[in-house]
Amino acid sequence: MPPDRTNAPNRSTMKFFHTILFTFATLYVFAQTPIEKVRQFRSAHEHAILSEYFEFLAIPNHASDQVNIERNAAFIEAMLKKRGVQTRLLDSRTPGTPKAVYGEVLTPGATETILFYAHYDGQPVSPEKWHPSIQPFVPLLLSAPVDKGGTVLPFPAKGSPINPDWRISCRSSADDKSGVMAIIQAYDAIVKSGLKPTCNIKFFFEGEEEIGSLHLDEILEKHKALLQGDLWIIADGPVHQSGLPLLDFGVRGDVNVDLRVYGPKRPLHSGHYGNWAPNPCLLMAQLLAGMKDAHGKVLVKGYYDDLIPFTESEKQAFAKLPAPDEQMKRELGIKAPEGGRTIFEAYELPSLNINGIRCADAGEKASNVITTHADATLDLRQVLGTDYLRQIERLRQHIRDQGYYLLDRDPTDAERLQHEKIAKLTMGEGGYNAQRTPLDLPASGRVIRAVQSATSKNVLIQPTAGGSLPLYLFEKYLDAKIVNLCITNHDSNQHSENENLRIQYLWDAIEQLAAIMMMEKE
Amino acid sequence: MPPDRTNAPNRSTMKFFHTILFTFATLYVFAQTPIEKVRQFRSAHEHAILSEYFEFLAIPNHASDQVNIERNAAFIEAMLKKRGVQTRLLDSRTPGTPKAVYGEVLTPGATETILFYAHYDGQPVSPEKWHPSIQPFVPLLLSAPVDKGGTVLPFPAKGSPINPDWRISCRSSADDKSGVMAIIQAYDAIVKSGLKPTCNIKFFFEGEEEIGSLHLDEILEKHKALLQGDLWIIADGPVHQSGLPLLDFGVRGDVNVDLRVYGPKRPLHSGHYGNWAPNPCLLMAQLLAGMKDAHGKVLVKGYYDDLIPFTESEKQAFAKLPAPDEQMKRELGIKAPEGGRTIFEAYELPSLNINGIRCADAGEKASNVITTHADATLDLRQVLGTDYLRQIERLRQHIRDQGYYLLDRDPTDAERLQHEKIAKLTMGEGGYNAQRTPLDLPASGRVIRAVQSATSKNVLIQPTAGGSLPLYLFEKYLDAKIVNLCITNHDSNQHSENENLRIQYLWDAIEQLAAIMMMEKE
Repeated sequence: MPPDRTNAPNRSTMKFFHTILFTFATLYVFAQTPIEKVRQFRSAHEHAILSEYFEFLAIPNHASDQVNIERNAAFIEAMLKKRGVQTRLLDSRTPGTPKAVYGEVLTPGATETILFYAHYDGQPVSPEKWHPSIQPFVPLLLSAPVDKGGTVLPFPAKGSPINPDWRISCRSSADDKSGVMAIIQAYDAIVKSGLKPTCNIKFFFEGEEEIGSLHLDEILEKHKALLQGDLWIIADGPVHQSGLPLLDFGVRGDVNVDLRVYGPKRPLHSGHYGNWAPNPCLLMAQLLAGMKDAHGKVLVKGYYDDLIPFTESEKQAFAKLPAPDEQMKRELGIKAPEGGRTIFEAYELPSLNINGIRCADAGEKASNVITTHADATLDLRQVLGTDYLRQIERLRQHIRDQGYYLLDRDPTDAERLQHEKIAKLTMGEGGYNAQRTPLDLPASGRVIRAVQSATSKNVLIQPTAGGSLPLYLFEKYLDAKIVNLCITNHDSNQHSENENLRIQYLWDAIEQLAAIMMMEKE
Repeated sequence: MPPDRTNAPNRSTMKFFHTILFTFATLYVFAQTPIEKVRQFRSAHEHAILSEYFEFLAIPNHASDQVNIERNAAFIEAMLKKRGVQTRLLDSRTPGTPKAVYGEVLTPGATETILFYAHYDGQPVSPEKWHPSIQPFVPLLLSAPVDKGGTVLPFPAKGSPINPDWRISCRSSADDKSGVMAIIQAYDAIVKSGLKPTCNIKFFFEGEEEIGSLHLDEILEKHKALLQGDLWIIADGPVHQSGLPLLDFGVRGDVNVDLRVYGPKRPLHSGHYGNWAPNPCLLMAQLLAGMKDAHGKVLVKGYYDDLIPFTESEKQAFAKLPAPDEQMKRELGIKAPEGGRTIFEAYELPSLNINGIRCADAGEKASNVITTHADATLDLRQVLGTDYLRQIERLRQHIRDQGYYLLDRDPTDAERLQHEKIAKLTMGEGGYNAQRTPLDLPASGRVIRAVQSATSKNVLIQPTAGGSLPLYLFEKYLDAKIVNLCITNHDSNQHSENENLRIQYLWDAIEQLAAIMMMEKE
């Protein structure tokens, strides 16, 4: 049966409704705030953003992997160029080191320049430690973290919804390709939503942060003129454990130390020589055990001498932060924290952390031997006032005080026969000190307000993070003012196996960074 | 110029010299002692012996590798059968465990039965630790040990000389396929030289000594009747460090222990949680450090309580041995041994040795993390009087006394929140106690004389080795009398990477074992 045309709306009625609809839509778009427009753009392009991110994540990114590090830099440069950004690769004075990717956008009428920093290199990976269903450099979507039963999901078809609670699994999905990606997508969303930044923008993406920013000082010094600006925004690190957005106004410094103690020149049968040949496993255990007391206090003489305690306003800021301690104890299965401290109290202190110990083998691959040497790696976090070189000198003295003949190389045969206990200490390249930005700078307040404008959640202010970034160098070489916008979930496993990023935090970071790019003028 | 035939020896002169030569050769052969005949046979068949040994060594032999362990047993059985020996594979009550290879030769008129023991399984291998020019299961000849600049030699053509200082490189070339090989070749040389043993011979080759002889008790019990005899000769372990032949009249017992201490449930960024989350590396270091004092004394309560000191005659025997201490200190680059003891003094004590520690990673693969757990493996050598189960119970108590909640499994989430320090201790399967044979038994004297007859060097007598063999079980189940003939070079790296056997020691062992097989009757 043909349709009864008499019941159909007539042409003029249709036109009327269309006009109404169009008018409301137009009004709605015009009524949107800039940040709502950015959100709408992001929301409409989630699939494309993830696709581009996966392509980026698939490139292995340890700073020592020169070929792939260059591929990462080229990928970032291409992403910027595609958005019409003028780019350059900034080298250091040392050939063959990872280059920083630089980009620049001038905004007509802008009186302020903001630099945006993230790093594109990642921590080393031990693939055998990752969950069998995932691999360090195969980006995948997970329904939840693998240690909470998450399973691998197929990449969603274009147009099908993306659950913001899903995780992106890959080395550096959290730390810190998320920062690179969020900065570029924030700029993209502004421009493609027909908006404009309120400032000139400089992009600066470092390629060797995770090995200690070995040549960052050289890059900053060499390209000092280019890198001038009014404010650095760092996009890195985890948001508060409660999930609330977080701005850090400081970071701890850090330096790594490799320690080796020596046993017999060749591995020995533990029956024939046990109880007689000094065992480097025991020597290392005794040496490390003596570095901290049972209350978690570092026993290296003078280790706490130089620390500058938190100011009153910093203490107040910490007091305003929700204390994450009870949540973290439950989550991590910890009954009593080291020294009975709170997490924030720990940030006031220089730390001495044993990253790992390796001495022959334990478990299935163990043999009944006395091995030749034991290795440990430490990282020493710095706080305002402490100097990483001075702290290492104190550690050296501590080791000598334990009766060790301390070298920075392997001992000779003659030295082995002259000294009862021999150790080698080598400093990881590229240590640096802590940095803090005063909370009461005008720029600080404007950044806080901008980020708050991009979220309905309460933005938290932390005077210093526990983690480290080489921001000290930005102050030293560029006299920079620095604020750090945190991005990732707190359970991202950054630095270890099964690293992952909760997708919502990428969306949030894009919006918050866009808000900073469009923030109120001075 | 043609030769002047008048100067050539005439035919009858030639015949005369030939006759003389033949007579002397015949007299020489008849004048040879049995052991000289064995030596001559061995010397004439070095190439064949090495070829057969290489074929044997190429079969991987960790006791857990069931397929290859069976291949080893079959290879040994075939070697015995080829020599006319009646063989059997002796199983335990537990299915799927390595079988002992048994062989039997009855000698007409013999009034005594001697059992010859060696083990054909080997320690686990970590191929990446071996020198790049060699592999654990590729038998090769080396000009010297790889750590002393030795290089790989081509296998010599038949008839070309074999330097007895060369090393055979392979896992178990020293420990203890050398024992299996020397026993079989000794018997072969006797028979093929037209000689006869003076005793009935029983061969017994074990296949799981290096994992603690897990089912040896079952095998000995099940096949008790078959394994009766007057004396057990064990072929295993290193000769004296001076290179002099060595008979051991005892061994220490041994048991392995795996230890784990727990940190946070997931690995943490050392910046965000350093100084706060308990670090299992530090906990393990403190736990291990507290097990021995600075003088190498074990601090586990009661650890030395049960030891039976050396008897006067044992002390005298040790006093007669050349003290290897100064040589070993030089060789191993040791200034001061643990506790200032001598090597022999160490053999009187139960030991506590850390085989290895594994906690995240150190060196290049280290990350700035607080890891989730730390592992250590210990081996506890037993001396006469100490009981391995009682010693482990003492170790457990020691760990509890350090404030640990001690489990034999991983903790539950609830337990993690209830206990500040949690450890897991699991005992390696198959521990056993020490064993000693009195030096003044008549059989002891006959073995000493036999071995002395086979060498121009002074045969040394050691009341106990520092190493372990499950000889305690032979005493327990068979009431056996046991003497251990040492075989390998002291620098054989048995139990560790780059294991090697100096060829001369294989030759010596063949001759010394043949001498025991032909020794004076009771």
